[in-house]
Amino acid sequence: MEKRFDPWGSNIQNYESAFDEFGLSKFENKFKLNHYFFDRNIIIAHRDFDKIIERIKNKKPFIQLTGIATSGRMHLGHKVILDLFVFFSKFKNSRNYFALSDIDAYCSREKIKTMKEAKEYAVNNLAHMLALGVPLKSIYAQSQKEPRYYEFTFELSKKITKNMFDAVYGHVDLGKIQASLLQYADILHPQLKEYEGKIPSLTGIGLDQDPHAKLTRDLARRFNLELPSFIYMLHQSGLQQGTKMSSSQPETAIYLDDPKEEIKRKIMRAFTGGLTSAEEQRRKGGNPDICKVHEILKFHHPNTKLVLNIYNRCRKGNILCGECKQICNDFVSDMLKKHQEKVKKTQKIADKFYK
Amino acid sequence: MEKRFDPWGSNIQNYESAFDEFGLSKFENKFKLNHYFFDRNIIIAHRDFDKIIERIKNKKPFIQLTGIATSGRMHLGHKVILDLFVFFSKFKNSRNYFALSDIDAYCSREKIKTMKEAKEYAVNNLAHMLALGVPLKSIYAQSQKEPRYYEFTFELSKKITKNMFDAVYGHVDLGKIQASLLQYADILHPQLKEYEGKIPSLTGIGLDQDPHAKLTRDLARRFNLELPSFIYMLHQSGLQQGTKMSSSQPETAIYLDDPKEEIKRKIMRAFTGGLTSAEEQRRKGGNPDICKVHEILKFHHPNTKLVLNIYNRCRKGNILCGECKQICNDFVSDMLKKHQEKVKKTQKIADKFYK
Repeated sequence: MEKRFDPWGSNIQNYESAFDEFGLSKFENKFKLNHYFFDRNIIIAHRDFDKIIERIKNKKPFIQLTGIATSGRMHLGHKVILDLFVFFSKFKNSRNYFALSDIDAYCSREKIKTMKEAKEYAVNNLAHMLALGVPLKSIYAQSQKEPRYYEFTFELSKKITKNMFDAVYGHVDLGKIQASLLQYADILHPQLKEYEGKIPSLTGIGLDQDPHAKLTRDLARRFNLELPSFIYMLHQSGLQQGTKMSSSQPETAIYLDDPKEEIKRKIMRAFTGGLTSAEEQRRKGGNPDICKVHEILKFHHPNTKLVLNIYNRCRKGNILCGECKQICNDFVSDMLKKHQEKVKKTQKIADKFYK
Repeated sequence: MEKRFDPWGSNIQNYESAFDEFGLSKFENKFKLNHYFFDRNIIIAHRDFDKIIERIKNKKPFIQLTGIATSGRMHLGHKVILDLFVFFSKFKNSRNYFALSDIDAYCSREKIKTMKEAKEYAVNNLAHMLALGVPLKSIYAQSQKEPRYYEFTFELSKKITKNMFDAVYGHVDLGKIQASLLQYADILHPQLKEYEGKIPSLTGIGLDQDPHAKLTRDLARRFNLELPSFIYMLHQSGLQQGTKMSSSQPETAIYLDDPKEEIKRKIMRAFTGGLTSAEEQRRKGGNPDICKVHEILKFHHPNTKLVLNIYNRCRKGNILCGECKQICNDFVSDMLKKHQEKVKKTQKIADKFYK
């Protein structure tokens, strides 16, 4: 009975069967990377991650890069992406590129009406990124790159065949196409001779982004670049049942700048795996696999033993939702309080970012 | 009988009926512009040219701009575009922008395989442009613009609706779409506040480019810019019957760097409006309206009286093709010899253009 429950496995059972079909490799931490993401199946699959490990082992440089479309306030879901970037940025041989994707956000999001708006979000997001430890010198805004970068987006467009295009887009939405071109340039441009040259590169993405990853690898082939490596992360889901954590739906997300009261309110109202009565739950146990409170701990609490312990106690009915929410709230409130203190300082740097 | 023949009219009879449909105004030189282009119906139509005349009259600044896709050697057809640009650049209140469209050429032309190739053509073309009097400071390469310019291409993409897109492109060819985006940016970016601000602008194009002109005006509306004005030029046709003057078909064009012998050979072989025997031609007269030799004179010879005189003598059978070809060859050889002398000097400037 006990072994039916795998605290880090429940979310990925649905995916594993699909990996073969998509050509992905299951991520197993044979690489012994020292971050809880890798112990908890938050990183679940990869393409060519072995190439990165080899570079690390052989003390050779590799590119790591990611980006965030600057289209709203940052929430805990973004923090996962930033934490992963910060983790890899600490390897001595990583060459780090973080795109503040302001043009992407403008081109692809209906709600962003002007570049000015996208840049305002970028300045806001930047302060949070810096507070979480993203190195300032790794960060660039798409709208402030060198001509070589833009030239490259146009070169890329020439190599996208009708077949590649149809497979990913199906129909034409020029703004989204433009945004994608920039994403491909973000991932591939560090391999140009004007930047790091042709070396392996690593980007963490969600499984839903895989069609773009494959197209980017196709493009790399056409430009005789190293095929970029990808690791695939689970997305933290929204706080309500069946929702995504979304910038545009405040009730689904805890924002990095949410005040204490707001954090508490949201955690207290979050969907859990508890049963209708305390008595029943003590008897039958709760279901942490579907619990949003437990998911917060899984994605953010650094102490794996503690998270595992809560998981098991929940299963056995030894901890109820109220106590669990309290633990979660204490943890998140404290974490974000410290974070917000840092943001007060980093905001000053962020305000000066756009020339 | 005499009045059936209009030396400057024959080519445009086919177009005039279409102007209404396309919303174009027939170009009449009520503006008294002092260049033979305007006296010979080489400029045949316009959109909003009155706005430019008003700026000239009121000594207010206006933008004038054009561009050339750098995809081959330059020929006499290009010279017409350059001459027109040089003419308007001499107005004190013109703000001149000449795009060396290297990215455009790379994206839209199958035969250009790399940006390096496009830039090599750009350097070659630049030397000729300078020799013809295009001001160096008006010239920019698309691949070397400021980030604001590229950002603007992405802003433009967001405002192109599915309807606008389908009307102009019909089907998807991403390279060509990208090339077009740059063209729209070339035409509209001088109106951004970072450049000249919102003022009228003028671009000379061929009638076949009108769908792009209309789309560009639509975009201007969406960005609250002044609708750009266009003047529509006839294209000089190729030297053989029914051909276009084309960089990729050497027999159809006289290149600006053709040696004397080559010029002579091409003119001597050009299609004329002569009849099968000299005797018959003396009796019935030739047809200069379809004559490629006469077309060269019409597009390039600065002396309108001389061109008109040859036209009338041809009609009456008073000049035969051999003599006419000789006059044309003397004129073109001399003109291009002087031009090529200048190119020897301007080539040095061109070679240093790309940083």
